[in-house]
Amino acid sequence: MAASSAVEPVETLETVIRSETKEVVIGHNRPFTVIGERINPTGRRIFQEALRAGDLSAIEKDVKAQVEGGADVLDCNMGVPLTDEAELLAKAITMIQELTDLPICIDSSVVEALEAGLSVYKGRALVNSITAEDDRMEAILPLVKKYDAAVIALPNDHDEIPMEAEKRLRLVQKIVDVATKEYGIAMADIVIDPLAMPIGADTSTSLVTLECMRAIRDTWGLNMTCGASNVSFGMPGRHALNATYLPIAMANGLTSAIMDARTPEVVEAVRAADLILNNDDWGTNWIARHRAKTAVAASS
Amino acid sequence: MAASSAVEPVETLETVIRSETKEVVIGHNRPFTVIGERINPTGRRIFQEALRAGDLSAIEKDVKAQVEGGADVLDCNMGVPLTDEAELLAKAITMIQELTDLPICIDSSVVEALEAGLSVYKGRALVNSITAEDDRMEAILPLVKKYDAAVIALPNDHDEIPMEAEKRLRLVQKIVDVATKEYGIAMADIVIDPLAMPIGADTSTSLVTLECMRAIRDTWGLNMTCGASNVSFGMPGRHALNATYLPIAMANGLTSAIMDARTPEVVEAVRAADLILNNDDWGTNWIARHRAKTAVAASS
Repeated sequence: MAASSAVEPVETLETVIRSETKEVVIGHNRPFTVIGERINPTGRRIFQEALRAGDLSAIEKDVKAQVEGGADVLDCNMGVPLTDEAELLAKAITMIQELTDLPICIDSSVVEALEAGLSVYKGRALVNSITAEDDRMEAILPLVKKYDAAVIALPNDHDEIPMEAEKRLRLVQKIVDVATKEYGIAMADIVIDPLAMPIGADTSTSLVTLECMRAIRDTWGLNMTCGASNVSFGMPGRHALNATYLPIAMANGLTSAIMDARTPEVVEAVRAADLILNNDDWGTNWIARHRAKTAVAASS
Repeated sequence: MAASSAVEPVETLETVIRSETKEVVIGHNRPFTVIGERINPTGRRIFQEALRAGDLSAIEKDVKAQVEGGADVLDCNMGVPLTDEAELLAKAITMIQELTDLPICIDSSVVEALEAGLSVYKGRALVNSITAEDDRMEAILPLVKKYDAAVIALPNDHDEIPMEAEKRLRLVQKIVDVATKEYGIAMADIVIDPLAMPIGADTSTSLVTLECMRAIRDTWGLNMTCGASNVSFGMPGRHALNATYLPIAMANGLTSAIMDARTPEVVEAVRAADLILNNDDWGTNWIARHRAKTAVAASS
């Protein structure tokens, strides 16, 4: 669309994930997909202790909060030191699927846990995640294929998180080549995380990531996700920064984010950007959202 | 910077405006310029009546509110039916320059009022505005030149506000040609308003305006402004829409906006976008802003 584009952008892709009864499509010409990130014990001591004791009941509250906040998909991570993560993740996923019909993003750095989660999951999951490292792709991509899932892929390798867009894009090409040619995974099932880095460490970092996003959309038409709150790490006014970052990223091609749906300010910004970027026909979603808010305000 | 750019973008321009003692530079690699829009009787019945009776005292409160809200420049419009707008505008500008050192954007559709305002203004003003209509350019550009001002220019003509980016860009070229070749005005002193239209009337309208912004930056390097709140006209959740629109527009090349600085949510989004787009070195402004907020909260 840009007047200065050298080549017509390629056709964009759609990533379909599902629970037993609900389908979610991540795509460039659709409302943004909010992947609720809260079902994760990282940095939550009490939750960790409960999980270690086999008590998963806190998950119920987290699911409820993310669903009420407007999550479209739920990320589930059960990485607690000194536990059987595979068993815990399988249990958590079974429990979540009894609580909600939202599809799940199965999140672990442990291959056995991913397989345990995939084996009990009912539907078509999103796997979080691989990198461009050969051993990670070799271990996880066969599972993605076997369980007919989609997969999040980070363009970094053993050596580094590349700070140059060009290097990240080379690693995206490597991921695409390996996943499609060696494992027969469809392009549409690869969701790239272009690596949103903390702006507090280097204020030029967002421009690199935004450049990657445009190139990933225009070169491959791939879907993308990111850990949105990384950007504001260490800075004051984190919600305002996240609420500003996501619309800019969406305008550059980001189609989903792993984010805490309990922050209304950030979810609101995402839905406003849906409208501004013409992914909310007639503003139907926006207007319905505000009618609901007005109704709640009136009844309270 | 975009991987898909056919041509290297041109060097971007800087628009310098001034009061007697303060200089403001509008530019692409700088913090965004907030032009406070409230000193304007349009739609304000009581203010209109006061002005008609020769009472300009309400201006003081408006100036204070815009300055406190973080405006960098103040727009001043005195368009009240059945008054001598020229006299009123000259008085208002003199008054504002006694109240604040912020530069002024002199806003009128009446040529005589613009001249009256320019003749009393101390410094280098921004004139709001011309269109691509021959008679408007012929009447106003000589004043811009005579008083060494900068000027906002809207790419529409007698017939229409063009809904196609290409037509708007043709009118930008016309404005640039006429202003520079016929009136000797510097490119840097032309600030284009790429026409942000209400999204409620047509949800595809923002994409056209954003495309224009990218092209205007990449083709001419010109500065731009817009009436930001137009976008949300007629929709619920206007502040959230404006706060989302501006960062997206900034990422596409918008360098200033005529906006109400009394809405902290929108000003905050603009300053967050400064940081994310690497126009706030080391995050100094962002951190200072939040220190000040914390200090205010602590003392109250």
